[in-house]
Amino acid sequence: MERRMNDRPRLVVIGGDAGGMSAASQARRRGPEDLEILALERGTYTSYSACGIPYLVGKTVSSPQDLIARDPETFARDFSILVRTGTEATDIDLQERTVHTVDAAGTEREERYDHLVVATGAVPNRPELPGARAEGVFGVQTLVDGIRLREYLDTRGPRRAVVVGGGYIGLEMAEAFLERGIAVTVLDGGPEPMGTLDADMGALVREAMTEMGAVFRPWAWVTGFETDKGRVRAVATADAVYEAEVVVLGLGVRPDSDLARAAGLRIGPTGGIVVDRRMRTSDENVWAAGDCVETFHRVSRAPVAIALGTHANKQGRVAGTNIGGGYASFGGVVGTAATKLCGLEIARTGLNEAEARSAGFEFETVTVDSTTRAGYYPDAGAVTVKLLAERRTGRLLGGQIVGAENAAKRVDVLATALWNEMTVEEVAGMDLSYAPPFSPVWDPVLIAARKLAERAY
Amino acid sequence: MERRMNDRPRLVVIGGDAGGMSAASQARRRGPEDLEILALERGTYTSYSACGIPYLVGKTVSSPQDLIARDPETFARDFSILVRTGTEATDIDLQERTVHTVDAAGTEREERYDHLVVATGAVPNRPELPGARAEGVFGVQTLVDGIRLREYLDTRGPRRAVVVGGGYIGLEMAEAFLERGIAVTVLDGGPEPMGTLDADMGALVREAMTEMGAVFRPWAWVTGFETDKGRVRAVATADAVYEAEVVVLGLGVRPDSDLARAAGLRIGPTGGIVVDRRMRTSDENVWAAGDCVETFHRVSRAPVAIALGTHANKQGRVAGTNIGGGYASFGGVVGTAATKLCGLEIARTGLNEAEARSAGFEFETVTVDSTTRAGYYPDAGAVTVKLLAERRTGRLLGGQIVGAENAAKRVDVLATALWNEMTVEEVAGMDLSYAPPFSPVWDPVLIAARKLAERAY
Repeated sequence: MERRMNDRPRLVVIGGDAGGMSAASQARRRGPEDLEILALERGTYTSYSACGIPYLVGKTVSSPQDLIARDPETFARDFSILVRTGTEATDIDLQERTVHTVDAAGTEREERYDHLVVATGAVPNRPELPGARAEGVFGVQTLVDGIRLREYLDTRGPRRAVVVGGGYIGLEMAEAFLERGIAVTVLDGGPEPMGTLDADMGALVREAMTEMGAVFRPWAWVTGFETDKGRVRAVATADAVYEAEVVVLGLGVRPDSDLARAAGLRIGPTGGIVVDRRMRTSDENVWAAGDCVETFHRVSRAPVAIALGTHANKQGRVAGTNIGGGYASFGGVVGTAATKLCGLEIARTGLNEAEARSAGFEFETVTVDSTTRAGYYPDAGAVTVKLLAERRTGRLLGGQIVGAENAAKRVDVLATALWNEMTVEEVAGMDLSYAPPFSPVWDPVLIAARKLAERAY
Repeated sequence: MERRMNDRPRLVVIGGDAGGMSAASQARRRGPEDLEILALERGTYTSYSACGIPYLVGKTVSSPQDLIARDPETFARDFSILVRTGTEATDIDLQERTVHTVDAAGTEREERYDHLVVATGAVPNRPELPGARAEGVFGVQTLVDGIRLREYLDTRGPRRAVVVGGGYIGLEMAEAFLERGIAVTVLDGGPEPMGTLDADMGALVREAMTEMGAVFRPWAWVTGFETDKGRVRAVATADAVYEAEVVVLGLGVRPDSDLARAAGLRIGPTGGIVVDRRMRTSDENVWAAGDCVETFHRVSRAPVAIALGTHANKQGRVAGTNIGGGYASFGGVVGTAATKLCGLEIARTGLNEAEARSAGFEFETVTVDSTTRAGYYPDAGAVTVKLLAERRTGRLLGGQIVGAENAAKRVDVLATALWNEMTVEEVAGMDLSYAPPFSPVWDPVLIAARKLAERAY
């Protein structure tokens, strides 16, 4: 379909969250003044912090409004971006350059585009098990999920919760329940919580969780949910039944790429939409950003799909710059992530042992115990740092940190080192900040790098 | 002088603090078993944290013993290192490979060496002004200085203090006085406190200081100290007199290289001992480490003398490894430093504007205000990040951070980026950790890098 001469150039964005709205805003900043921008959002809210949902549930954050960076009115007023909420994109026609939409009232439309951004996000893994749709069983993927769960806790006042899945969201939800004085059991299919850490580091998380009064059950594969009058009352595994008045599913997510696949866009081995470094898909007029894409892992050099708001923001910005006629490229990821469970901070970057092995590396590891401040300084907390380095080259492959307050953000040094393909010998020599309130004279990550350098070559 | 066949190889270390004792310990670990190690220390204590002295004075740290990592008995017992305290090295004979020493009793000795480590540290800049030696005027260079000052505060109970010099030590001492409820005025010869920051960032420090109840006086050049019966009662500048019952001098330090110079070792333009990357001096049997050496600044590519325990430790370790027959090199510095003043954290790395100009760079700068946590997360504190990047290349040249708790350690990402000569465009794209308790979705350093990238090319 040729664009008629009197038409304004038109950008359509599918998905009104981090990836999509970053692309839209940046295209507005960088693009031609007459660019028309339409964003389609299936749900009610735009541009909210999905990462903040556990804190909303735990009442660390008081109102859902706090999590919303910009609402549709703000986009309309400040960016001249029209957001149509409650509107689902059901089909993309790459030939005709149109998107078929249906709104809540059932009204269908055909939206033409010159540029299209697919930012459809991720879908939570939800087990197809008996009772999985019972009242009291919640996902916490969207802001609406979070609001509903919070209301349920406020009105029902459950005393026992079960969290299925001991990853980031599972731990953050466990914290939320603890904050609200609700007893919580975390069931995980693996040996330890935080399966993106090695089990020896995950064990530290389990020990801390247990001390905080949460219960962790390893190798706990859920077989179903027992209900009473349509409401959940217990979670069943192969060998046990855990009573629960509320259940949260935190089983991870996968790219929501069905729409893109149906349109004929190329999908990669991770299930994410394939994009080039400018975030362009296999169709030259279509871009993609956020949890629905797969991206390049700089250490494994393999495609990965990592659902994280920070990547979505950067990718959306890159897409928007390119759509606007500028040049920007997304450099990939190194697998950095962080969270906390009450006073315990947890972070990782690069490859863990299983990932390094699967990427074909041989490696050495080291684990050191140190402190977040000089040992003699008040509130010096314990921190454990584990590093992996390639055999012979000594190249840093990954790092994991579990420790007290101020422990987690140290992972950024390791992420920066990975980005630059540094060896642990080089890392050990770096000029990092030192003062007694901030670290021992050798920062814990330097100690770890130094010890690993002695071993890795 | 030929070493006699039956002599054990012998390492002599001049200076029993961070640089010297790191070298000695590492030589013990890596060197031949029969290596004899003698360390000469002019003072009473070995291997203590000089950076901890302000916290000792402010009683954040309770006992001087807390600051001592290892005492002479520990070195003797665990490392077979003989430490002779109260013993000054007065002369080095490079030809004969001997050190002349005098102890407190006046006994003189000639110590032969096969390897010598010069780790004589730094001397504080002390103005030769009337009254500078009065009772109540203190330096805080050595642990003994700190102990004496603390005792003076305990016994005399002064109500007003003046700190001369608004740099790291000056600010840390101001904190110590505030902690003890002593009114404090900081006099500085420049426009703002923290002269290693640009004045616009220093202004933020001044504003915070003032809110904390400390007084800062710019352009205040001290002309003398008024005394009453030999005890200080005021500090005089060209245009004012500041009453003070206790005065601390924090005017920086310079390399203590007199002994090395007299021996004929090469001294550089900074006044520090010249060493190669293995920490070897101009004499092949003599090594040096710590505050007495000059080192390579990786950004300016010029020699610098930076007195900091973390460098001293690394350099000592490098020297010790090489003395022990291994290979290690010191990669230089990027000028990273951090401190705090009560709840305010301050950090810098690389070059500030004046330093960048003097190194011949043309550059762009950006300053951004952000938060240490997601804006909606409780206790999200303000943080200001300033970055400098070279014109045309966009290469990061330096960074400065002033902000609330958890602000300072972010400088390590910038230090790592400088180490790797990254551009701000690259920095902006990096995969740093994100979770609401730790940072906004774009970490403040990423926001700054992103904004500067838009401007630097």
